[in-house]
Amino acid sequence: MTAPATFQVDESLGVTAPLGFRAGAAAVGVKAPSEKPDVGVLACDVAARAAGVFTRNRVVAAPVLVSREHLKASRTLRGVVANSGNANACTGEQGLADARQMAALAAGHVGCRAEQMLVASTGVIGRMLPMEKVSEGIRAACGALGRGPAADLAFARAIMTTDTRPKQAAVRFDLRGRTVTVAGATKGVGMIAPNMATTLGFLTTDAPVRTALLRKILRRAAEATYNCLTVDGHTSTNDTLVLLASGLALREGRRAAAPIAPGSPEAAAFEAAVTAVCGHLARLIAADAEGGTKVIEVRVTGGASDKEARAAAGAIANSPLVKTAFFGEDPNWGRIVSAAGYAGLSSGPETMRLTLGDVVIFDRGRPVDADPARLEAVMAAHDILVHLDLGAGTGQARFLTCDFSYDYVKINAEYTT
Amino acid sequence: MTAPATFQVDESLGVTAPLGFRAGAAAVGVKAPSEKPDVGVLACDVAARAAGVFTRNRVVAAPVLVSREHLKASRTLRGVVANSGNANACTGEQGLADARQMAALAAGHVGCRAEQMLVASTGVIGRMLPMEKVSEGIRAACGALGRGPAADLAFARAIMTTDTRPKQAAVRFDLRGRTVTVAGATKGVGMIAPNMATTLGFLTTDAPVRTALLRKILRRAAEATYNCLTVDGHTSTNDTLVLLASGLALREGRRAAAPIAPGSPEAAAFEAAVTAVCGHLARLIAADAEGGTKVIEVRVTGGASDKEARAAAGAIANSPLVKTAFFGEDPNWGRIVSAAGYAGLSSGPETMRLTLGDVVIFDRGRPVDADPARLEAVMAAHDILVHLDLGAGTGQARFLTCDFSYDYVKINAEYTT
Repeated sequence: MTAPATFQVDESLGVTAPLGFRAGAAAVGVKAPSEKPDVGVLACDVAARAAGVFTRNRVVAAPVLVSREHLKASRTLRGVVANSGNANACTGEQGLADARQMAALAAGHVGCRAEQMLVASTGVIGRMLPMEKVSEGIRAACGALGRGPAADLAFARAIMTTDTRPKQAAVRFDLRGRTVTVAGATKGVGMIAPNMATTLGFLTTDAPVRTALLRKILRRAAEATYNCLTVDGHTSTNDTLVLLASGLALREGRRAAAPIAPGSPEAAAFEAAVTAVCGHLARLIAADAEGGTKVIEVRVTGGASDKEARAAAGAIANSPLVKTAFFGEDPNWGRIVSAAGYAGLSSGPETMRLTLGDVVIFDRGRPVDADPARLEAVMAAHDILVHLDLGAGTGQARFLTCDFSYDYVKINAEYTT
Repeated sequence: MTAPATFQVDESLGVTAPLGFRAGAAAVGVKAPSEKPDVGVLACDVAARAAGVFTRNRVVAAPVLVSREHLKASRTLRGVVANSGNANACTGEQGLADARQMAALAAGHVGCRAEQMLVASTGVIGRMLPMEKVSEGIRAACGALGRGPAADLAFARAIMTTDTRPKQAAVRFDLRGRTVTVAGATKGVGMIAPNMATTLGFLTTDAPVRTALLRKILRRAAEATYNCLTVDGHTSTNDTLVLLASGLALREGRRAAAPIAPGSPEAAAFEAAVTAVCGHLARLIAADAEGGTKVIEVRVTGGASDKEARAAAGAIANSPLVKTAFFGEDPNWGRIVSAAGYAGLSSGPETMRLTLGDVVIFDRGRPVDADPARLEAVMAAHDILVHLDLGAGTGQARFLTCDFSYDYVKINAEYTT
């Protein structure tokens, strides 16, 4: 979930780093009583290829329904309009009409068809959008569209809810002698679980990629990163991860560049870049998780299958008992082993081996007398690796999660009131 | 999950209320540094019929393995030996030998074969049992075997871990002109989820019931009560629910009573009594859940199947976001609807109806303008009913859970250290 050695991930760059993208934001009080930005618009100067992955929750928010429609209806996109502070979920026909209006308003300002804009909302479920404020916000955000660090951060801030900091990342690599950029902004930080995208995420690139390949790469990158991230096991109604490709990096004058060919080394490099950005963004979410004080990477190897390894990793990463133990810096490894045990394994504890950091603590059904000082050092760290080998096969999986603190309870007991 | 109107559940009676049972306890420092009782023995004066249901966790504690063996090896039982403070789980061959020794020691004192004793342990995972202390405790508990309120409470206290109070219940009903008693003691209160029994529970009765019927009734009662209870979604390694039947209530002199016939009205009455006791015990666990301040009953109706309704109820009852909202007395119903939404439903929000207490708050895809004062009163109560109708069929299910407070984090961050 970290970038391959070949990529240097740069958090100072955001969604307008690739050629052809502009972003803007406005604060209009959807997140009232705060004066923080709550409407953001991302626009592409040219018709961009696009792909999206969305929540698999059966209770789907209106903006997700509209975005899916638009991705089907239009071969190309020109941008995304987003708001925070209100999820526009469980809002019936009126909510659907409001989401459509958001797309139409943004399209009017950007100068494209409504179907070329996607819509994303995040915040409280079950309240009608204050459309007067939202319309004003869209107008102001479109008026502020620009490029560069300030525009990047303004957009990243506009999609924040309980996030404590904006989250963005970019990587650059060479393609045909030119520099290609893949960038993204995302927000967390509660109601996060697979499946699917578990959050809002907006990726941009200036690589030339056709829609079919874009879809395939985005789906695989999400599966390996966002879908291995859990904060509280609660899949949201609004999860959206979108990738827009302007193709401008390799353009010669007015001639469009030849698209990256599926299966080529170029496609592999591009997929690695997208995965690196998604992986970095997912880690930023885990590090800023509601009330989280630690980032915990759960690695499971030796599963009878990848699926079994994934089930075990997910059970460990979602267990409130495991997560509270990490908050207490308590190496209560029995909770880890027993969480794997209820994930439907084909093997038992007699083949398992559990390592915390670099300290083996349970081996083939028996506790290991570990050095308390080394164990204490592992548990005191901010980043902790939990490695469970099931000893049953070659299946493997990884999950990213956080600990569970008083602040998680505080933040979530007081969120709407 | 409450007793049918025909049963009066009595919490002043415990495991020795049915004829033929004695109980004893001792404090020997397994739960050190506390001086609380930590070894308990339950003994039956005659060879009892028995049934047990155990954890479905693949990581199974040694006492569960031994108890399963003994239930298979022996047609009748004479009792149970239990300890708290140490789960004897993930302890390998030594742990298995220790569990066998516990049974043998208790059997020696009670005067039966080792296979006629079951073993149960609860507490920290991954530590070897301090067998010198445990042996001393078994001797002392067997020396203290007795009947009546003091013996009942001593036994109920000996199985407590983070429980704040002992948990027991009994019901009495007439059968063939005599009084039959079903009683039980149980402990919670974290690491609780289906499946299975989610805790330790020891039930006794003096009804005459053959093993096959006993098994069937215990399994069904557990399914309707203990298996609809969740505190943190973490299925334990040690879950054990046992039912012992002495048959002494209807004995005529030395002649054994005719056993209750399967399918008879007597069987129905007995099953209702067992279910009432299990239901009451499960509610006691929910009410004493680690850090819980409220008992929340999640009822789901209108599912395409009972299975679908159960999945939705379980997702709601296990969501940390739902549970923290109840702690904050915040009617954040979007979290409830969205939790159901990720349970794999066949229907969407447009047919749903959500009621908190007696206040409808979401109806066919749209929020309802509920009276804030009535809603506030519902959320302020200790017992809260959440009723989600999926509007898709006749499937239904019920789950019992608690809210999620600062104290859950505190208790579980500090448990072993």
